Amino acid sequence: MAARFDTITFLSDYGTGDEFVGVVKSVIRSLAPHTTVVDLTHEIPPYDVRAGSLTLGRAAQYLCPGVVLAVVDPGVGTARRGIAIEVGGGQSYLVGPDNGLLASAVAMSGGATAVVELTSREHQLEAPGATFAGRDVFAPAAAHLCNGVPLTDLGPTVDPLSLLPGLLPITREEGDVLVAEVLWVDRYGNGQLNVDPDEVAAFGPRVQLRWGDDIRTATVGPTYAGIPDGEVGLVVDSYGMLSVCLGRRSAAGELRMPVGTEVLLSAPTDDNPVANVSTPVTLTPRSEP
Amino acid sequence: MAARFDTITFLSDYGTGDEFVGVVKSVIRSLAPHTTVVDLTHEIPPYDVRAGSLTLGRAAQYLCPGVVLAVVDPGVGTARRGIAIEVGGGQSYLVGPDNGLLASAVAMSGGATAVVELTSREHQLEAPGATFAGRDVFAPAAAHLCNGVPLTDLGPTVDPLSLLPGLLPITREEGDVLVAEVLWVDRYGNGQLNVDPDEVAAFGPRVQLRWGDDIRTATVGPTYAGIPDGEVGLVVDSYGMLSVCLGRRSAAGELRMPVGTEVLLSAPTDDNPVANVSTPVTLTPRSEP
Amino acid sequence: MAARFDTITFLSDYGTGDEFVGVVKSVIRSLAPHTTVVDLTHEIPPYDVRAGSLTLGRAAQYLCPGVVLAVVDPGVGTARRGIAIEVGGGQSYLVGPDNGLLASAVAMSGGATAVVELTSREHQLEAPGATFAGRDVFAPAAAHLCNGVPLTDLGPTVDPLSLLPGLLPITREEGDVLVAEVLWVDRYGNGQLNVDPDEVAAFGPRVQLRWGDDIRTATVGPTYAGIPDGEVGLVVDSYGMLSVCLGRRSAAGELRMPVGTEVLLSAPTDDNPVANVSTPVTLTPRSEP
Repeated sequence: MAARFDTITFLSDYGTGDEFVGVVKSVIRSLAPHTTVVDLTHEIPPYDVRAGSLTLGRAAQYLCPGVVLAVVDPGVGTARRGIAIEVGGGQSYLVGPDNGLLASAVAMSGGATAVVELTSREHQLEAPGATFAGRDVFAPAAAHLCNGVPLTDLGPTVDPLSLLPGLLPITREEGDVLVAEVLWVDRYGNGQLNVDPDEVAAFGPRVQLRWGDDIRTATVGPTYAGIPDGEVGLVVDSYGMLSVCLGRRSAAGELRMPVGTEVLLSAPTDDNPVANVSTPVTLTPRSEP
Repeated sequence: MAARFDTITFLSDYGTGDEFVGVVKSVIRSLAPHTTVVDLTHEIPPYDVRAGSLTLGRAAQYLCPGVVLAVVDPGVGTARRGIAIEVGGGQSYLVGPDNGLLASAVAMSGGATAVVELTSREHQLEAPGATFAGRDVFAPAAAHLCNGVPLTDLGPTVDPLSLLPGLLPITREEGDVLVAEVLWVDRYGNGQLNVDPDEVAAFGPRVQLRWGDDIRTATVGPTYAGIPDGEVGLVVDSYGMLSVCLGRRSAAGELRMPVGTEVLLSAPTDDNPVANVSTPVTLTPRSEP
Repeated sequence: MAARFDTITFLSDYGTGDEFVGVVKSVIRSLAPHTTVVDLTHEIPPYDVRAGSLTLGRAAQYLCPGVVLAVVDPGVGTARRGIAIEVGGGQSYLVGPDNGLLASAVAMSGGATAVVELTSREHQLEAPGATFAGRDVFAPAAAHLCNGVPLTDLGPTVDPLSLLPGLLPITREEGDVLVAEVLWVDRYGNGQLNVDPDEVAAFGPRVQLRWGDDIRTATVGPTYAGIPDGEVGLVVDSYGMLSVCLGRRSAAGELRMPVGTEVLLSAPTDDNPVANVSTPVTLTPRSEP
C-alpha cells in the first residue's frame, strides 16, 4: 500500500495543558510515521462546535492537501456518528464527529464527494473507556488514510446529505439596516462580522454601528494601523470580511462586543449627531487576550 | 554510528510563553536533525513533579518507541542527579532528573533495565549558568541516544533501585468506605480518582461521594454525555479510571474538588435520604479551564 | 534549484488560540514541504516588539542554521518595510518587519551581510485584506529562502544601516550605584536584569537592591535552589545574566518587580541595618504564571 498523504492538520478543543494532543500525535506517529502534524489550534473553547467550525472554515483555503483531523465532540460516547469525508474526489479528507464541525471546511473545499461512518473496529484502538474518540477512533482513521487505506475500508458509506449541517449566521436587511453578528474575536480583540465589504459599500466611508444600548460611527479603513487613535474602525480583515477594531487596543473588550453580539450597520444618520462623527472612546488599560 | 530512534516525546513545566521549549528543540535539531519531537505538554504547573509523573504515566502506553525527555526539575543545579533510563532492554529511553518524575512511566514500561547518571561533559552543552539543564544536559542526552550513542557513554551506571520512587496514592478501605483521592482535573473539569471501576462495583449503580463537608450521590455511567443534566456522574474515563463529572460542566470547579481532594466512596445509605437520590446542583456559569 | 535549509524557527505574538500559527505553517508546508518549523514562542504580548526582540536575542546562539521567521508587527499594512536579512554571508536568514524586532538576533549572529525589502509580488500570496503579512508575505519569503531562491529575487537590496535598530537598555553607573532594569520575567517569576555578573562582583556576596520604595539585600548564588527559603537571590541565569529570584516562588510577583522596573544595585550599606541582612519576605500563595 502506497502512502497517500504526509500531512495531517489537527484542530481540537483539547487545550494543551493535558496530554491529549500529544497522545493523539503519538498514536498517529505509531501508525503513520511518515506524516507531519500541523496544529491549527487546540484552544477552541470546550464543546464549542460553532467556533471550531468557523476556525476550520477560515483556514480551509490555506491548508495543504492531506487529512484534516478535527475534534470538538460534546457527544462523544453517544449515538453521534464518527465520520470521514472525502473532498475533491480524493484531494483531501476530513475526519471527526458528525456534528457540524466539519461543515464549513467541507463547503470551502467544494463539498463532500464520499462519506463513511467510522465503524471498523480493526482500524481503531481498543479503548478502556468510551470518552477519548480522538485517540481511539479519529487519529487512527486519519493515519490509515495517510497510509493509503481506502476510505471504504473504514466503515459503511453514508449519504452526504445526511450529515449534520453547519449553521452559519447570515446577514439580513431590515429596511436600510444590515443586521450582522460578531463571528469571531481574535487575539488582538478585533471582532469579525459576518459582513462582506460589498454589503456596506453603499453606506460610504463611515458606517453607523448599533449593538445593545451602544451606538458608534466607525471609519472604514484598509488596515488596523490606519484607524486614528481612539476611533472605531471597520477594517477588511485578512479573510476579506469586515472586522471592528480600535487601533492596537481590543475592540471586543473595550466596546463589549463578544462573539455572538448582534450588530446593526447603517449609513450615519443626521438625527444622531453624536454618532455621526467618529466617536472617541475612553482609554482603559488593555486586557490581553 | 547508526541512528537508533527518530522520535523524542517531550514533557516539561516550561510553559510556552518563554523560549525554553523552542531552545530545547533547537538543540535537539542541531544534534540529531533526523528526529521529530512530539510535545506531550509543557504546562505542568511549575515544579509539580507529581503532576508531571502522573501525566507521563497516563500517556506511557500510547507513546512511540524512542526517547522520552521530561523536565520538571525544582532541584536544578543542586546535587540531584540527571539520569537516563533504559526500559525494555533498549526499546525506549527516558531522560530527566532523578526526582520521581519518570517513575510512573518507567513502571508502565516494565521497569528499568539500565540506568546511567548524566555526567559526561562532552555530551553536554557548556552552560553560562547552572539553571537550564533541559537545554544543556537533558536535550543533548536525548539527541545522542537517538543518534545511537551507547547509554554508558553518557555517564556511570547507577543501580535502578537507588532511583527516587514515584509516590502514587493508593486507595484504602475503612469499613464499608473506600478512601480515594482526586489525581487529576482535566481541561473539561472532570476529576479523575485513583479508583478502578472494579473497586466500586459492589456499591451498585449509585455511589455516595463525601468530601469536605459535601455529600452527593453519583450515577455510574459509561460516558460524560450519558449523565443527566445536573447530576453528578462517575464515569469510566479514557484511561479506565473513575472520573467525577457533571455533564458538560466542570465537576471539579462547581463541586470544589481540586487535585488532592480526599473523596470517600460508599454505597448510598438510607439514613441520608437527600444524598440517596441524584442531587441536582445549582447551575452556575461555567468557568473555562 | 536545490533546497538550502530545512529548518524555520518561528516566533510571533499570534498566540495559539486562533488559527494564525497553523495557517502560517500550512503556507510554509505547501511551498517548502521539506522544512520543519520549530516554534520559539507565539505568546509574545500583542505588539510588544521589545519583548520579541529580547526573546530572539536570548535564543539566537542556540538556533539551528536556517531561516528565522519573526512576526510582531503593530505597523502591518502601513509603510513599514518587510525585510529579509542575511547573516554570516548566507549561514542563516531572518525574515520579518523592519521595526527593530530582528535587531538583537542579527547582532548576536554577527550582523547583516545583506538585506532586501520584500516587495516581489510573485513571491507572496494574494491577500484578501492587508493585515496578515505573516501569512501573505513573511511565510512565503521564509519558504522560498529554504527552497534556495536567491535573496535578491525577493526584492530590492536595502542598506543594512537603514534598518530600525533595536533598543537594548544598558546599565549606567551613578556614583557607587549601578542603575539596571528588569528585562524579562520568566514563567517561574525570575526577573532577569540587564546586568552581567562582572558588573557587581566588587559589591561582594551580598548586593543591595532598591526599586520603587522597596529595598532588599540579595544573596548572590549559583542556582535558584541554592538560595535559602525566604531570601532574595541574585542568580547567574541560564543566559549568563543576573536574575532576581525567590527560591521556588515568583520574585517578580511577590516583590512587585515587573518587566521595565528600574533597579538600583549597590554594596550593602551600614546605615541601612535592616537591609544589610538577608531580608525574609512574607510567604504568600504563589500565583502561577
